[in-house]
Amino acid sequence: MDDQHHNFKLLIAYDGTAYNGWQIQPNGTTIQEIIQNQLAIILKESVAIIGSGRTDSGVHALGQVAHFKYREAIDAYRLLGSLNGLLPQDIRIKEITSVPSHFHAQHSAIAKTYHYHLHLDKIMNPFNRLYRFHLREKISLDKLKTAAARFIGTHDFTSFANEAHKGVAAYDSVRTIKRLDIVEQDGGVRLEFEADGFLYKMVRNIVGTLLEVAGGKREEGEIPKIIAAKARPQAGKAAPPQGLFLVKVHYPELHG
Amino acid sequence: MDDQHHNFKLLIAYDGTAYNGWQIQPNGTTIQEIIQNQLAIILKESVAIIGSGRTDSGVHALGQVAHFKYREAIDAYRLLGSLNGLLPQDIRIKEITSVPSHFHAQHSAIAKTYHYHLHLDKIMNPFNRLYRFHLREKISLDKLKTAAARFIGTHDFTSFANEAHKGVAAYDSVRTIKRLDIVEQDGGVRLEFEADGFLYKMVRNIVGTLLEVAGGKREEGEIPKIIAAKARPQAGKAAPPQGLFLVKVHYPELHG
Repeated sequence: MDDQHHNFKLLIAYDGTAYNGWQIQPNGTTIQEIIQNQLAIILKESVAIIGSGRTDSGVHALGQVAHFKYREAIDAYRLLGSLNGLLPQDIRIKEITSVPSHFHAQHSAIAKTYHYHLHLDKIMNPFNRLYRFHLREKISLDKLKTAAARFIGTHDFTSFANEAHKGVAAYDSVRTIKRLDIVEQDGGVRLEFEADGFLYKMVRNIVGTLLEVAGGKREEGEIPKIIAAKARPQAGKAAPPQGLFLVKVHYPELHG
Repeated sequence: MDDQHHNFKLLIAYDGTAYNGWQIQPNGTTIQEIIQNQLAIILKESVAIIGSGRTDSGVHALGQVAHFKYREAIDAYRLLGSLNGLLPQDIRIKEITSVPSHFHAQHSAIAKTYHYHLHLDKIMNPFNRLYRFHLREKISLDKLKTAAARFIGTHDFTSFANEAHKGVAAYDSVRTIKRLDIVEQDGGVRLEFEADGFLYKMVRNIVGTLLEVAGGKREEGEIPKIIAAKARPQAGKAAPPQGLFLVKVHYPELHG
């Protein structure tokens, strides 16, 4: 029956400042909820949209992906205009494409790219205050780079996962970080993460731990031990949300 | 007596979104007022700060300049830290320098640079929604460039000035625009204005008029006639404030 439905993929950018994250929840306004509500106005019925994964309160997206199924064909270009016309300006649908019925925003994803932005100058740029973490302590970029390299590869990242999956039997915490680059940019650096998937708060927990090493509070050699411990309290505290951007969700080439 | 006072120059960046402009006024919160109030807390007395000129509600600054006089010497570096510690994050003091007593933020200025940012893509970038004007109509960049060149030079800009100076006898409306460049940037263009001074709302009124020409609603040849008319109703309507940034106030080399 699903195959008789049309399937639509949304590419979404949002400023997460004003929202309680992506995923619908009982308290607070979420991005998923707002898009779903506006889509329901246009289609004159409720349709569930499914995202590639959650982003937390205050976290931003340049390339979140979601999909929804609908029994009729829709002119995607017109829908794009209607939806952006109804949505608040801090949420923009960048593209809507008709995709094969087997496409699933979460299950079809093979990798994700996140960027974490650090402002390192003494004085914050007021235009970046909601989009970068202003680190007031001095850090060593060399230490940051060496420590970052320790995370690359396939590991059990339990020490860097918050407990959203506690009680989920046989939950698999093994992920592969393919790339963790430190790129200098005006006023600071960004950390570019690419992995086949990320556990809950994994990027922010890794960034927080890296900053403790780069700031001289921990030794770089502790990192393999923290990973091996498979215990969240061993790692550093999470870096704040406003520096984090979901940049891209990767999918295999789509075939009909 | 003034010469026995110490004189301090402030370089200021602000996101104007939340404020009723720079200049203190009876209704609404202004940037000048907020800085003055925080300075009074630190110095334990009220001190007037004088800006290079006003910016309107919603207009931003990367390089506003102000000065204030004080009877005692102040450690400028410590004051910078204290002031930024008290100010909201959308206002940052970038530098405080001790300057000769004859320096005056407004009267000593010899030129100003403003940038006006236009977003021209169909879909707005949500992170630029408060910092660029999203133009939905199509415009010709060639026409924009040709029309912009018509403004360069020394003219009476009465047609592009709002009436803040109405009733001021012998107010001089002649200004010299040294540079008006159209620079392409991601998603659109910015218009870079440099002049010896700007009348009230002059940049936004010129941008609004340029957009009417670039959008085909007026002929480029009308521009000299609009200037010659010296009548505000002849020109186009003002472009909205959020695209406008005061980038730099120029001063002669400071001598003691």
